[in-house]
Amino acid sequence: MCDACVINSVKQKMLSRRDFFKATAVGTGAAAAATLTGTMPAMAQTPATITDMTHELHQTFPTWGGGEQFSAEKVFDFAKDGFNLFELRVNEHTGTHVDAPLHFSADGQSVAEIPVANLVAPLCIIDIKAKAAEDPDARVTPDDIKAWIATNGDIPKGACVAMNSGWDAYANSYKFRNAGDGGVMHFPGFHLEAARMLMEEADVVGLAVDSLSLDYGKSMDFAVHYAWLPTNRWGLECIANIDALPAAGATLIVGAPKHRGGTGGPARVMAMV
Amino acid sequence: MCDACVINSVKQKMLSRRDFFKATAVGTGAAAAATLTGTMPAMAQTPATITDMTHELHQTFPTWGGGEQFSAEKVFDFAKDGFNLFELRVNEHTGTHVDAPLHFSADGQSVAEIPVANLVAPLCIIDIKAKAAEDPDARVTPDDIKAWIATNGDIPKGACVAMNSGWDAYANSYKFRNAGDGGVMHFPGFHLEAARMLMEEADVVGLAVDSLSLDYGKSMDFAVHYAWLPTNRWGLECIANIDALPAAGATLIVGAPKHRGGTGGPARVMAMV
Repeated sequence: MCDACVINSVKQKMLSRRDFFKATAVGTGAAAAATLTGTMPAMAQTPATITDMTHELHQTFPTWGGGEQFSAEKVFDFAKDGFNLFELRVNEHTGTHVDAPLHFSADGQSVAEIPVANLVAPLCIIDIKAKAAEDPDARVTPDDIKAWIATNGDIPKGACVAMNSGWDAYANSYKFRNAGDGGVMHFPGFHLEAARMLMEEADVVGLAVDSLSLDYGKSMDFAVHYAWLPTNRWGLECIANIDALPAAGATLIVGAPKHRGGTGGPARVMAMV
Repeated sequence: MCDACVINSVKQKMLSRRDFFKATAVGTGAAAAATLTGTMPAMAQTPATITDMTHELHQTFPTWGGGEQFSAEKVFDFAKDGFNLFELRVNEHTGTHVDAPLHFSADGQSVAEIPVANLVAPLCIIDIKAKAAEDPDARVTPDDIKAWIATNGDIPKGACVAMNSGWDAYANSYKFRNAGDGGVMHFPGFHLEAARMLMEEADVVGLAVDSLSLDYGKSMDFAVHYAWLPTNRWGLECIANIDALPAAGATLIVGAPKHRGGTGGPARVMAMV
């Protein structure tokens, strides 16, 4: 979105009594405080809610590859040891999780290097539930983005654009992977041209999906991953409760893990309205 | 804090142009949206910053027990496989992490069961840097809490009370554990009587420390853990960058992991001002 568009968008939002803030950088050197620029929903003197967009992670949560990717071993037990403690084994790309740029690039940002300001983002939700119910291979297209803009206005600077395909409801069933002949999966995702449009025409920091992958299930080439992540934008997969949120006006908070050199990992994702 | 105190506190905050919101419950059944009650800093039409309170996690990050508690094995490599991916092994209580009530109780909330509204909290920071610099066995006492209240007003409902002992600066050095004769550690924490005061006299949902444990290093009995966690309040250990934040007015966001039955885990912790 161009600077003039940003300014016009801001004016509209202020006129419509939606509050706006622009953050300033604080701290120096290794301090982690960072510039945050974006719109935020009104939180002052109005009712507000917080929605948990995170699925509970457990051993049999469906995975893209089909195998188990999480386990917990109890190494201390309250009755015997006086406290409980588990050691966890987890594939980074399991459950509600973030894809860091490094996941599909040689030298993109690791999950620890994503600027913290990019983890708090205006949330734009594109609803494709109707077409996904008809066709599990449905994708978010440029036309879907144009329709969202026509209804909700320009996409805010620094936003996350999220797909609401209804797939959240299948998270603990066979249909989440929906594997058919030859093991080919059928679930919704973003179309490559939609990702390109968001990269070229808007200042979007992240894509989010309520299915297992930014790319739709039958993709054989990870086209969206290869286009999106190497530009130091992130992805979120397997988000929950998106259907409880408005198309515009929520603020997403991505509680991404912060392990050195990581390509992503299970994240606590919340939205404030 | 009594209802009248809450109301007075709110009035004061509104008079001082600090905005307040009280959230209402939304959603039903399994929906994760929940009641959020508390003060929030002004985010409307004012500068705002977001501070990352999370240390980068790596294999040699200091641990309470002294051993390595995190490792990452690369199972896919971009040059060879077209993408990068790690499998992680991690002890739940490693790096900047949350202690769920279940960590020190038979049947307290698991990390997946902590209400999401309790993970967004007004942040009250008690500075004991001066006495901790003199004595690494220093603790947050009831007098420290009274002094904070005298300066900043009542502790907001649903708050997190955090210790700023200056120990953050030692996170990647020997002094973070500061083990002396017989392996006894010397780092600051909360005094049991301070924890009791916050349980009895204020509606506090969490304690946070910039050291390795809610209990000070030389504790042999985990007295604070045993008093605090079984009441379904949480703890945060090894928080970073707390010295960059104001004593009052910030809002803490705890990106706790959400694995079934977990006793805690590495968390992405942020603060908004």
